[in-house]
Amino acid sequence: MRQESLVKSISVRIRKRAYQVLDIPEADDGLSKLVTNALVLLICLNVIAVILESVENIGNNFGKIFFWFELSSVIIFTIEYIFRIWCCVESPDTRYKKPLIGRLKYIIKPLIIIDLLVIIPFYLSFIIGLDLRILRVIRLLRVVRLTRYSGAWSLFSAVIKAQQKPLIMTVFLLALALLIFSSLMYAIENTAQPQAFADIPSAMWWGLVTLTTVGYGDVTPLTAGGKVLGAIVTVMGIAMYALPAGIVASGFMQELNKRQFMVTWSMVAKVPLFTRLDAEKIAEIANLLEPQLVPPRFTIVRRGETADCMYFIVTGNVEVELDTQHLRLTSGDFFGEIAVIKQHPRAATVVSLTECQLLILQARDLDRLLEDNPDMAKEFKKIVQERLLESPELARNQNNA
Amino acid sequence: MRQESLVKSISVRIRKRAYQVLDIPEADDGLSKLVTNALVLLICLNVIAVILESVENIGNNFGKIFFWFELSSVIIFTIEYIFRIWCCVESPDTRYKKPLIGRLKYIIKPLIIIDLLVIIPFYLSFIIGLDLRILRVIRLLRVVRLTRYSGAWSLFSAVIKAQQKPLIMTVFLLALALLIFSSLMYAIENTAQPQAFADIPSAMWWGLVTLTTVGYGDVTPLTAGGKVLGAIVTVMGIAMYALPAGIVASGFMQELNKRQFMVTWSMVAKVPLFTRLDAEKIAEIANLLEPQLVPPRFTIVRRGETADCMYFIVTGNVEVELDTQHLRLTSGDFFGEIAVIKQHPRAATVVSLTECQLLILQARDLDRLLEDNPDMAKEFKKIVQERLLESPELARNQNNA
Amino acid sequence: MRQESLVKSISVRIRKRAYQVLDIPEADDGLSKLVTNALVLLICLNVIAVILESVENIGNNFGKIFFWFELSSVIIFTIEYIFRIWCCVESPDTRYKKPLIGRLKYIIKPLIIIDLLVIIPFYLSFIIGLDLRILRVIRLLRVVRLTRYSGAWSLFSAVIKAQQKPLIMTVFLLALALLIFSSLMYAIENTAQPQAFADIPSAMWWGLVTLTTVGYGDVTPLTAGGKVLGAIVTVMGIAMYALPAGIVASGFMQELNKRQFMVTWSMVAKVPLFTRLDAEKIAEIANLLEPQLVPPRFTIVRRGETADCMYFIVTGNVEVELDTQHLRLTSGDFFGEIAVIKQHPRAATVVSLTECQLLILQARDLDRLLEDNPDMAKEFKKIVQERLLESPELARNQNNA
Amino acid sequence: MRQESLVKSISVRIRKRAYQVLDIPEADDGLSKLVTNALVLLICLNVIAVILESVENIGNNFGKIFFWFELSSVIIFTIEYIFRIWCCVESPDTRYKKPLIGRLKYIIKPLIIIDLLVIIPFYLSFIIGLDLRILRVIRLLRVVRLTRYSGAWSLFSAVIKAQQKPLIMTVFLLALALLIFSSLMYAIENTAQPQAFADIPSAMWWGLVTLTTVGYGDVTPLTAGGKVLGAIVTVMGIAMYALPAGIVASGFMQELNKRQFMVTWSMVAKVPLFTRLDAEKIAEIANLLEPQLVPPRFTIVRRGETADCMYFIVTGNVEVELDTQHLRLTSGDFFGEIAVIKQHPRAATVVSLTECQLLILQARDLDRLLEDNPDMAKEFKKIVQERLLESPELARNQNNA
Repeated sequence: MRQESLVKSISVRIRKRAYQVLDIPEADDGLSKLVTNALVLLICLNVIAVILESVENIGNNFGKIFFWFELSSVIIFTIEYIFRIWCCVESPDTRYKKPLIGRLKYIIKPLIIIDLLVIIPFYLSFIIGLDLRILRVIRLLRVVRLTRYSGAWSLFSAVIKAQQKPLIMTVFLLALALLIFSSLMYAIENTAQPQAFADIPSAMWWGLVTLTTVGYGDVTPLTAGGKVLGAIVTVMGIAMYALPAGIVASGFMQELNKRQFMVTWSMVAKVPLFTRLDAEKIAEIANLLEPQLVPPRFTIVRRGETADCMYFIVTGNVEVELDTQHLRLTSGDFFGEIAVIKQHPRAATVVSLTECQLLILQARDLDRLLEDNPDMAKEFKKIVQERLLESPELARNQNNA
Repeated sequence: MRQESLVKSISVRIRKRAYQVLDIPEADDGLSKLVTNALVLLICLNVIAVILESVENIGNNFGKIFFWFELSSVIIFTIEYIFRIWCCVESPDTRYKKPLIGRLKYIIKPLIIIDLLVIIPFYLSFIIGLDLRILRVIRLLRVVRLTRYSGAWSLFSAVIKAQQKPLIMTVFLLALALLIFSSLMYAIENTAQPQAFADIPSAMWWGLVTLTTVGYGDVTPLTAGGKVLGAIVTVMGIAMYALPAGIVASGFMQELNKRQFMVTWSMVAKVPLFTRLDAEKIAEIANLLEPQLVPPRFTIVRRGETADCMYFIVTGNVEVELDTQHLRLTSGDFFGEIAVIKQHPRAATVVSLTECQLLILQARDLDRLLEDNPDMAKEFKKIVQERLLESPELARNQNNA
Repeated sequence: MRQESLVKSISVRIRKRAYQVLDIPEADDGLSKLVTNALVLLICLNVIAVILESVENIGNNFGKIFFWFELSSVIIFTIEYIFRIWCCVESPDTRYKKPLIGRLKYIIKPLIIIDLLVIIPFYLSFIIGLDLRILRVIRLLRVVRLTRYSGAWSLFSAVIKAQQKPLIMTVFLLALALLIFSSLMYAIENTAQPQAFADIPSAMWWGLVTLTTVGYGDVTPLTAGGKVLGAIVTVMGIAMYALPAGIVASGFMQELNKRQFMVTWSMVAKVPLFTRLDAEKIAEIANLLEPQLVPPRFTIVRRGETADCMYFIVTGNVEVELDTQHLRLTSGDFFGEIAVIKQHPRAATVVSLTECQLLILQARDLDRLLEDNPDMAKEFKKIVQERLLESPELARNQNNA
Repeated sequence: MRQESLVKSISVRIRKRAYQVLDIPEADDGLSKLVTNALVLLICLNVIAVILESVENIGNNFGKIFFWFELSSVIIFTIEYIFRIWCCVESPDTRYKKPLIGRLKYIIKPLIIIDLLVIIPFYLSFIIGLDLRILRVIRLLRVVRLTRYSGAWSLFSAVIKAQQKPLIMTVFLLALALLIFSSLMYAIENTAQPQAFADIPSAMWWGLVTLTTVGYGDVTPLTAGGKVLGAIVTVMGIAMYALPAGIVASGFMQELNKRQFMVTWSMVAKVPLFTRLDAEKIAEIANLLEPQLVPPRFTIVRRGETADCMYFIVTGNVEVELDTQHLRLTSGDFFGEIAVIKQHPRAATVVSLTECQLLILQARDLDRLLEDNPDMAKEFKKIVQERLLESPELARNQNNA
């Protein structure tokens, strides 16, 4: 009985570790880094293998090598897939916490479906003997998994989401123009070129190739009327570029503006640490601080990273993730100062709970600030001391790191 | 005599209902939604039918099905057309109020002309036996009617309108470059390629295909001089993209900036509900409020929608449309609060009469605000109570919804 | 002797009128408008004639008509050319005031050189019998003269001028990429395609057609190495679009931002008419006023236009051009109010002398303002009355208009 | 012994002069200008020679001329290369100060490596008899050296650097789309076109040519399925343009905004010269001053330039480079005023040490300011006088210039 519980406890610890290893690696987790890099390398090698295998000469001569490489890759990916599903319950995301329901929810995540999709073709061809070219191509989807490791899609997706409406309208306009001009072209050119403009779908091929300014030249209007209509379509192609380019440009501008809110005097004046300073001093500090807007669930500081700045919270809440404790900080609080002062790597990961406005103070500016303001330095050190006393883990991590 | 008036009264009520059904549907009008969706589906099916019919195999084999589908579609569209003209006098737009003049004005609206255009070809082919391919293509114009149902062209049209001048100038520059370079090319290449560059219009075909960077390759310069000139034209093609893309981008930026005016302290301070609060409190509320600029005749709130925010009017006038009453609100007033508090769908549609600057307060923020400020909450509830007393219809709708 | 002076005086008056007629027409100068429109029409007809004449069938069949049309056009343009040079001394531009030097300076203005260029070919072919195709094409340059009548190039040229440096650098980058990649392609493909990539200039033709994404397809790489290099070049083509589009977009944004300076409270408070109002009132007026930045020598108001707004000068100087008087107004002054109040067309043209920041008040807002502020209305009317007394011509124009 | 030291001293002076001559020329250094222009001309001639030599006719007929021109060019470039390395220790950049290590560091600078690369091929062909076409092409790299003389890459590189992340992501997206769609196309079209879509790399050639909208038309899909897939790819090509264009546009906007910080009242109030003025006067001056943000090591003023403005330092440090003295100025100081008052060319070069916020006052505005404020004028002149006394060299340069 006790032994069983021991087994279970070990199993949970292994699962926890497995989750950490397969997740995006913390800066001080060597094994996780190694595994991640190995997987990225394996995916890249796989993609190259699929491409090379398609070349007749290479495919025929080195067929055996390709087979064994594919076999071992699939085995590795299968193991990885099973591990991911097994340890997904360790994810901080509460949706996946329940042993069965949570895992089922995890399995239908798009990236996890792709994980499955890229290993199935091999088993299909192995078991049923089914070996279609299209199945081999599916193996290339492995490359999509690389997006898992490339962070910072947040700006991209924010822009696309904010500009969704005008972008969909542009697509609607494109479809409208395509439909009307292609069918007009069909009516005009059909008698002159019964092959190339045999029906409206054929004319739409010409229409799209022209509207997008690709212009293969495999189908072109020959009659005078067709050329006049074609001229109009080529000019409309410009609009089809100007509109999305303009929309995306303004979207990026807006998003960047939003993220770079102004650091105002009153923002700084509200930070408890600075309240006793006089107005001029606060204005000076406001110039030193850089603003940053982070979305919810954004990892602001990662354990093990080198520390070159500290943070003040203007609005929003963050959570300092220690192994045994989770500290919550809110408006007016600051964090990240210990690693800066002690010149150690970050001792804890800090994640935003809500959208937060943060002010960043660079390490070199902090030093100067504390030197110039002895009173403030005294208070600052007192708070730091209290924190280390209250959270012995923080102090320990600090010393180990 | 009395019977006649009764008939008339019923006829008017049917007409009113017909107008509501054919208009863009209110959120709680099931029949209107059904009819709209059915019409959208029918249009899409029609477009697909026209495209498929043009494919020889399909068109010949299923000719009869296409004919009967077309016949029934045209009958439905004809009925819709007659109904639209019959009930257009019910439109809130005063131009169409008069029985005869109003209907004539309505008939010459662009979208209504298209409604007619797409049904005429069928009758022409049926009655006169005239069956040109071009007439069949006209049926595709039905797709333009879909724009009636896709709202929010306002941003697009505002940008295009504001940037009209530079855009027209870009077109003028394009025409200028096209004319001069094409005729130069004609002068240079004519002797080497008497077929492809037979005259200036032929050279202009080459010019446009190159300036828009479509580049079919059906006509290309062969002489050294022609290639040098062609090189200049290809580079000018870049300018032909950079200019409109730049203009549209700056246009979108401007329009978006305009719509997202800054919420200033003084704006909030002027709202009567907040005047008694102290400066700090007002600054806090200013952070909660989102700005929105709406054009005249914009439907801000639609009856039956779920309510997640309330509105304060900074400038401009709006009208609350109840069945029997039309309330007018102006600067300093607020609306949409009842649905938020009672957690009901919107009880009335609210339309802007002039351009309005609105401040939006989210439901969750309102709750918090009222909790934190008991005095304000008391006053707020008093106003709400008075409103419900003054407008029993509002209270009734609220309870029915 | 006296007769001679009379002749001279008449000659001067004719010259003055001729200048007005040929210049961009004032809104109330019917003859000038007629002449301008006739010239624009004649230029357009000429362009069409040149294009049509190049088509063999039409050119041969209607040769005589084209000849006589060309003959009469050239005569008209010659007369216009002589008149323009004769009366250029009446231009407000002081550079052209001197009878001989001024006229010589005028002759070498780019647009005037084109005026000459487009009539010379005809005389050359007529006198020397020289009739080259290239000469006929030069006649098309007439279309450039249309730019004389299309105003508002100022925004375009301001953007291009401000972004000159990055745009030139883009061209430099394009040239650099073209040179290096084309010659590399020449080295790679020369043995495989000794015809198409015979030398570096031939390879540059391919390079430019690809970098600008025109892609005729008349020359494409065939070797594996060539295709890899070609792939790099096609991707660089994207940069060649993104850079200028981005530069132009940011240029337009900047220019538009500059022109729409913020109307601040202090700007309004400095206008003498408003100084006695209280702070709140001034804030209200600040919301009514629209800002406009005009470059030097910009015609703000044109005589004869309908008046729907008045102007306040924040910074800069303007000149009110009456027939006999030239009034100069400066910061704090206002103008254009008389036409608004009397609901007459503008009685005088107003031109900026320096760059001016103007505030525009719409007619309907002025009415409301004067109603709400009786004291201000009194002062306002007093100033208007004084102006009409001081400048009887203004009063007269007002009544005649 | 003494003679040796004399030789050394002369050698150092020559080296110093050589450095000045080869560096970007100061405005008043005639020899440096001459050498620079000669080198630019020689590079351009070399590029033209390489291009012309590749044309068979020209290359064969004028082979000897090309050889001798190449020989002399290489000799000049070799001398220049040796001189550059010899005198690099005179560079203000401290990294290159040490005789041996400094020179080695200098040799591996990218532009210096290119300097070597472009002369090596000649010696190779001369000594070993190796004469590959690719080596001749390398000579074209000389054109890259022109970037040394075209300043102001700072804006370009700042934009690219700031937008690095989204740009790399766009490239990643392009690669992803290319890989997946190309291999899909290979699977679909391979049986219909076994030649054109023989393997995935071949399909990727089609994919890239289509995604970048180049569209040669040498390879196009023929099957219905291939055309549908091709249609999707052409539309994705639009996104491949819209994204980078949008990113670059917003990047330029941001960078330009950053450089044009607002001139605030408090900035001006902090300048010691203005502190005694009243608030209204300071607001007036704030309108006259233009803001400029300069990066570190930026040459703000160059000796010998004509002077039309003076500078105030808001933040940062600059160094005034006199022949014998190096003055350091900081926040609140001003410079460039002497040349403006005396209407002489700049007497010294001023370089920023850190990023500096500067305020620019135009010469004409300075005159007016001093006239209007006699007190300020007195103080201003006192400071100028003190400076000239303290730095006799400045006074001397001023008089010589």
